[in-house]
Amino acid sequence: MSKRYEDDSLALHTDLYEINMAKTYLQDQVHNRRSVFEAYFRNMPFGGGYAIFAGLERVIDFIANFRFTESDLDYLHRELQVEEEFIDYLRTVRFTGDVRSVVEGEIIFANEPIVQVDAPLAQAQLIETPLLNMLNFHPLIATKASRIRLAVGADELVESSMSKRLMEFGARRAHELDAALYGARAAYIGGFDATSNVRAGKLFGIPVAGTHAHALVQVYRDEYTAFKKYAESHKNCIFLVDTYNTLKSGVPNAIKVAKEMGDSINFVGIRLDSGKLPYLSQEARKMLDEAGFTDAKIFASNDLDEYTIMDLKSQGAKIDGWGVGTKLMTSYEQPALGAVYKLVSIEDQDGQMVDTIKLSENPEKISTPGLKDVYRIVNQLNNKWEGDYITLEDERPNEQEHLKMFHPVHTHVSKFVTNFQARNIHQDIFKKGELVYKQPNIEEMRAYCLHNLKHLWDDYKIITKSEKDVSGPTEYPVDLSTECWNNKMENIEETRLKVAKKIKEISK
Amino acid sequence: MSKRYEDDSLALHTDLYEINMAKTYLQDQVHNRRSVFEAYFRNMPFGGGYAIFAGLERVIDFIANFRFTESDLDYLHRELQVEEEFIDYLRTVRFTGDVRSVVEGEIIFANEPIVQVDAPLAQAQLIETPLLNMLNFHPLIATKASRIRLAVGADELVESSMSKRLMEFGARRAHELDAALYGARAAYIGGFDATSNVRAGKLFGIPVAGTHAHALVQVYRDEYTAFKKYAESHKNCIFLVDTYNTLKSGVPNAIKVAKEMGDSINFVGIRLDSGKLPYLSQEARKMLDEAGFTDAKIFASNDLDEYTIMDLKSQGAKIDGWGVGTKLMTSYEQPALGAVYKLVSIEDQDGQMVDTIKLSENPEKISTPGLKDVYRIVNQLNNKWEGDYITLEDERPNEQEHLKMFHPVHTHVSKFVTNFQARNIHQDIFKKGELVYKQPNIEEMRAYCLHNLKHLWDDYKIITKSEKDVSGPTEYPVDLSTECWNNKMENIEETRLKVAKKIKEISK
Repeated sequence: MSKRYEDDSLALHTDLYEINMAKTYLQDQVHNRRSVFEAYFRNMPFGGGYAIFAGLERVIDFIANFRFTESDLDYLHRELQVEEEFIDYLRTVRFTGDVRSVVEGEIIFANEPIVQVDAPLAQAQLIETPLLNMLNFHPLIATKASRIRLAVGADELVESSMSKRLMEFGARRAHELDAALYGARAAYIGGFDATSNVRAGKLFGIPVAGTHAHALVQVYRDEYTAFKKYAESHKNCIFLVDTYNTLKSGVPNAIKVAKEMGDSINFVGIRLDSGKLPYLSQEARKMLDEAGFTDAKIFASNDLDEYTIMDLKSQGAKIDGWGVGTKLMTSYEQPALGAVYKLVSIEDQDGQMVDTIKLSENPEKISTPGLKDVYRIVNQLNNKWEGDYITLEDERPNEQEHLKMFHPVHTHVSKFVTNFQARNIHQDIFKKGELVYKQPNIEEMRAYCLHNLKHLWDDYKIITKSEKDVSGPTEYPVDLSTECWNNKMENIEETRLKVAKKIKEISK
Repeated sequence: MSKRYEDDSLALHTDLYEINMAKTYLQDQVHNRRSVFEAYFRNMPFGGGYAIFAGLERVIDFIANFRFTESDLDYLHRELQVEEEFIDYLRTVRFTGDVRSVVEGEIIFANEPIVQVDAPLAQAQLIETPLLNMLNFHPLIATKASRIRLAVGADELVESSMSKRLMEFGARRAHELDAALYGARAAYIGGFDATSNVRAGKLFGIPVAGTHAHALVQVYRDEYTAFKKYAESHKNCIFLVDTYNTLKSGVPNAIKVAKEMGDSINFVGIRLDSGKLPYLSQEARKMLDEAGFTDAKIFASNDLDEYTIMDLKSQGAKIDGWGVGTKLMTSYEQPALGAVYKLVSIEDQDGQMVDTIKLSENPEKISTPGLKDVYRIVNQLNNKWEGDYITLEDERPNEQEHLKMFHPVHTHVSKFVTNFQARNIHQDIFKKGELVYKQPNIEEMRAYCLHNLKHLWDDYKIITKSEKDVSGPTEYPVDLSTECWNNKMENIEETRLKVAKKIKEISK
């Protein structure tokens, strides 16, 4: 592009207000005060019962390489009239703090911290926007992918057979190139089997999949010739059969070519990309079987998502593999997760950490103050999860005793849990700016994600587009410890009093 | 990221099937046959009456740099077992064809070619996915931005006052980094005044805007101190007033600081980010006016889009500037444009260009065959547009005579136009692989876009979320010439007969 400055850094990939605030912090010399920010989202995406975390590698990469280049500084100075003193600060600033995060493939829920940044104030502030830009996207796609995985079937995942095969085909509809690339990655972590995006295959080692498009048939102007030419140049063949007429032309031509080519090709099957899929797939199945191709698979695509897949299955469609594009990669049903990044604790002038809170007329928008830990409460009898339990940093659920869990809003909804293990869901990623976390490979992330689903009761995994009140998933408990809850209530009260007092002063 | 191969090329940012098809073309030695593909979308986004084109610079950049690197080839060979002969072809392939396109800021409509690629077959095929990945995103955001621009008011755009100011705040919710960056660019072309994304400001020269976040108030734990510290470090001040209580605390504190700072700052105004904006803005306006700050502006944000903005205005909200994020940058209402790329003409073995068509049970999915031109029919009397008129390449609307325009589906809907000028909406971008188009700067693109809106009758610009049948925009005519329409009908008939004949042969 005709760029005026070199695109040699992501440090300016941030909202201007982060830079404005950092400048105030520097001028007031509070820029190095210890601060703790938490990233979380407030509502479960897609009205679902769980979500999947992804995107940590991207966050790590950003933080590890966080620095302002001379072209960044030149722009700020020349175009935005930023003063030299602040430019000098930006020139040398690096991320020197701690980051704790859940790992990729972890199951996550609304209103619990996903990523915690514990760092000098100006640093933590400057990385807010790019972190949210990543954290709002990767988990959204991984979650959607996991739901589609469940709709197709998640039981036989260990075998990489062609049955229940799930392919990501959405690059062309993704929101620009990064979304196509990282969306393919997130979909794979969420349980997809392959992507059509070759660059994602190259960079991340994801299996790639694809056959041919309608254009091939149009080039040869008849399906027989097109399929034949394709078969003469490819060992594995899946023929797209809906360019003219699926049952009258596409499928018969595919069968004819498969018969003629015999063992010189591997006739994997056919792909349907339009029309009424229950009927077409059933008829195509009969035609393939009658021709002796009982092992040939039927693949389907065309604006699919978890709901259409469940519909098609319940209508008896004979589909073995699924190509999902637009509805997954644009997260069509809900294209924004709404993740936020809130300050929960800040060092005061005496070096003490003090809690901070943001009030709101909307109770669910009030942040939970303080340094916190999140424990997943695992029932020892069945290995299922009882819920997540958020504590202040200095407490820990005592596994020898029973644990009282209660809903943070409807506090009368409560239960006692015994015989449990409490697993801290966060891992140390950066310590004093050093990367201390060894990243698993993408196969391990994907396996971890699929494995995790087994620990979740089925009623949290319900997928429905219908009235959520009646047939939707149960709400997974994400509870505050009594201490954490009391601390929040005290902060709300204290802050309200303080604000009221200040107003009285002003009015005088 | 822990990438196995270097990320040194975008050539593999494509669906595997494009590569599979290119391989078949090469093996069959048809890879250099001249082919014409057209990119277009089938339905107007957001149920609107017009759309805005953007993204051409990005497409140009991709095509001009299109080449497979050794790491691409190594991946294809090692991991996907692509044969040496095809690798050798890919190693040297460059784009050597022609590209014609509408320019950025142009108003476009469904079912007319936006970009035409006239190139050797394999080349045109290989660039399909990345082109669509771009063309599905930029126009979507530019169109949404234009709608929001109209909702706020598009008349006083020449003056860059603080009234009716429109700022893009969506980086954190965009789908990964490219979408944030290029979304800011598309929004600016569509008529926004500024972005909060500093990197977009650096790279594209877009004005950047931003104040401070709730975090600043939380750091100082009271608004008075936070505003004061901000004012001591910034000349232009907009205070965010909703951290605790907008009217009881935020606005009074902003006024107090503004009074204390006097002429040492430019008190631009306040920003409201939550709560009921009609009431809050009216009360805040009164408070500012009573304190003597009649010039201070009120900015608003919080999940705004064209519909909420129109609502707020009709409810008498006193808002001067608008910050729009999520709903714009994720194109929340409709996150996919559905642009496709279809082969319309291909060279046969005798070197003749022959039309191609894709049939479908869904009439609107049938492509329009042949090399085509698109003319915008401009009424000479009032400079308004009568509609777009698609011709075959060798015809041209005769401006000396009257022109019959008729609806391509409901053909009885027709009109005669006289006293018109026919403007070909496409420009030559690449000729034989050489870039021949000189790109305007982004200010010119934005001005062109806003200027164009004036030529569109108001009933095409109607913005409504209500029942489109009753209160929605009129459908802008995108008509085929009689010749083009006849050619399409003949192609449909001919192809159907050919397919039927082929089937009879097979069945024997």
